[in-house]
Amino acid sequence: MKTINLGIFGLGTVGSAVAAVLRKNSGVIADKAGLRLKVKAGCDLRRGRFQFPVAGSPAAILNDPDIAVVVETMGGVNPAKKYVLAALRAGKHVVTSNKELIARHMDELLAAAAANNVALLFEGAVGGGIPILNTIRDNLSANKISEIFGIVNGTTNYILSRMTAEGHELGEVLRDAQKKGFAEANPKMDIEGYDASFKAVILASVAFGAKVEWGDVYREGIDKITAEDILYAGDIGYVIKLLASARLTGGQLDVRVHPALVAKTHPLAGVSENFNAIYVKGFPVGELMFYGPGAGGNATASAVIGDIVAVANDKCQMTNVKLRDFDIRNIEEIIGRYYIRLQVPDRHGVLAGIARVFADKKVSIAAVTQKETVGSQATLVILTHEVPEKNLIAAIKAIRKLSVVNSVGNVIRILS
Amino acid sequence: MKTINLGIFGLGTVGSAVAAVLRKNSGVIADKAGLRLKVKAGCDLRRGRFQFPVAGSPAAILNDPDIAVVVETMGGVNPAKKYVLAALRAGKHVVTSNKELIARHMDELLAAAAANNVALLFEGAVGGGIPILNTIRDNLSANKISEIFGIVNGTTNYILSRMTAEGHELGEVLRDAQKKGFAEANPKMDIEGYDASFKAVILASVAFGAKVEWGDVYREGIDKITAEDILYAGDIGYVIKLLASARLTGGQLDVRVHPALVAKTHPLAGVSENFNAIYVKGFPVGELMFYGPGAGGNATASAVIGDIVAVANDKCQMTNVKLRDFDIRNIEEIIGRYYIRLQVPDRHGVLAGIARVFADKKVSIAAVTQKETVGSQATLVILTHEVPEKNLIAAIKAIRKLSVVNSVGNVIRILS
Repeated sequence: MKTINLGIFGLGTVGSAVAAVLRKNSGVIADKAGLRLKVKAGCDLRRGRFQFPVAGSPAAILNDPDIAVVVETMGGVNPAKKYVLAALRAGKHVVTSNKELIARHMDELLAAAAANNVALLFEGAVGGGIPILNTIRDNLSANKISEIFGIVNGTTNYILSRMTAEGHELGEVLRDAQKKGFAEANPKMDIEGYDASFKAVILASVAFGAKVEWGDVYREGIDKITAEDILYAGDIGYVIKLLASARLTGGQLDVRVHPALVAKTHPLAGVSENFNAIYVKGFPVGELMFYGPGAGGNATASAVIGDIVAVANDKCQMTNVKLRDFDIRNIEEIIGRYYIRLQVPDRHGVLAGIARVFADKKVSIAAVTQKETVGSQATLVILTHEVPEKNLIAAIKAIRKLSVVNSVGNVIRILS
Repeated sequence: MKTINLGIFGLGTVGSAVAAVLRKNSGVIADKAGLRLKVKAGCDLRRGRFQFPVAGSPAAILNDPDIAVVVETMGGVNPAKKYVLAALRAGKHVVTSNKELIARHMDELLAAAAANNVALLFEGAVGGGIPILNTIRDNLSANKISEIFGIVNGTTNYILSRMTAEGHELGEVLRDAQKKGFAEANPKMDIEGYDASFKAVILASVAFGAKVEWGDVYREGIDKITAEDILYAGDIGYVIKLLASARLTGGQLDVRVHPALVAKTHPLAGVSENFNAIYVKGFPVGELMFYGPGAGGNATASAVIGDIVAVANDKCQMTNVKLRDFDIRNIEEIIGRYYIRLQVPDRHGVLAGIARVFADKKVSIAAVTQKETVGSQATLVILTHEVPEKNLIAAIKAIRKLSVVNSVGNVIRILS
């Protein structure tokens, strides 16, 4: 049986889980893949922290002709990019779970892989243990994909799930999540949608063969979602989720991350806690959903080792794929439905004034609910029919100026 | 670009969808797979019904050296098995969506493929368009799978979903489903769990590398499920689903098909209408679920064409896999929880008598609810703790003899 020697860059949660799973499941892997995977050397910036047969330096790994596959699980762009490029140029296949690196430099890295006739795979970069990228490329190769969207950030899904279950505000749930290790000390990357935006880029690239600049992705986090929004959305049959999405409409690509109202009957609505799920729509398959653990050492190790087996057995198809340019659709051109929460004085004439603005801006109202009055103030929840986002923006701008509106509480898109 | 010539056996719903999708999506497929797929000949037992460039006979397809891949979409064992074996022996790869053929003859067919150094793939045989078999083999190759179970029959899921939504009995919903084309004129294969049992065999084989005799699979359909069962299950937080499952416990394989109470919080509970979903548990990945259309020409064509691309690009790993023997766990040895509905006279002493029998047979009761009385009769719904099924069977046998029990309405397993 063939032995494949690996070198690991980055021995944190994922890298050390990869090494541990390779030891623990060596029999299973030999059985299924027909090969032995051996970690010959590992290195980490935090020197001396980890023990390996050869506690390798980056140079030792890169220069070792016995090492056929480099695993990069450092995270971040620097210095990971330098090592990945060096490994590809040294003729080594690279498997990485580094979403930021792939989202920001996929085109350059794939070109380097192709130039050196090696593979670069990154299944673990999106959805943790969920097989999604290779599945789209291989098993769904008959399909013209039209949409791919889902819950790709476990931390925000955990927070929204708890806000929904408990009725608490984000800050309170976040502090408890941090205490329990479900959220980072600095939660900006998750809460503000950065992490999800990296994954949106990768999903769009793989689903559509598109070259997507990370900076072109529309991004909005969950920081403005209140307990009140979740409650009112629930009353009308929706849950609020942070969605990453990519859609192809009229040759234009629409890639974005934002919170959305998801109908309780939609398969994504039931995805709770820190689970991820990705929904794919295409022809001929129709609709699919892939659900699983979106993060964690073991789950991500499953994806990373799957990729190692694929490159070791020469079963991957992505190398040499050339990403094409697409027009990116401006968020204002997008047509959608919206949830709007307004604080208004509790007196007559209010609704008439608001309705007139919406009509002026060609925003058609589907439903209005007035919530219980607090003091002299009432809450209006308005759902629109489908409208171009630019009309909605114009309407909201005008509404902010109305004397009959105290404040615009929130505007949230509805998944349709 | 390489052209791969195909011959199709069986031009019904799936076979003709494969041909149509290959035409319609030829550009997409060329782009993703790097090859052209051309249907050179097709044949069908119903002669003259379909037009192809070459309206081939079986012999013409089998003897054509230009045809590299045979697609078998006839269904059933005879004559499909004969043609598949002949194609493999003629050195052609075979892709099939025929669940009955694969479930009953997988070992023999895989051996013929291996002997002739060609591939036999059958992704479309389970879960229609859901990528599950290749995903387990390839992307999840790092995993020791412990359980795989799910909703694999769209017709029964549609019927149970409508019974749940409308409160109607099975017969009434079935007749309407037949009128609408969602159920066959002869619904036995679906309703009595035969179709699901074929899929259970295939899932078990692929997930565990196990040689499973179809005749060894425990099978129970949905024919005894009543509107009352669905209502009572709903009251205590469960939905009723027909599940196919395969589990590996202590080296023994447990493969079965039966209705089960599924907690409303389980990801499978939200799978409604004629959708399918398959849940996989393993180490290191944890839990995954794959959701999508379980049948239909287009969805199944997606799977079939994915397989064609894999064999054409030599990317499949299953050929030459040798299935191993496992002990099959007898259903009576299985430990589980149960829902029991009893019709009893509405008088005192009843519950005491029943409870004594359960205690005698070492069946521990978790909950009892007495439902509204109709005439002089009451309904008792009993949930058990985990018990060996043989204890439960003994208890039910004894309870049937009790004078304080009019009848045993139903006994349904609970997914735990």
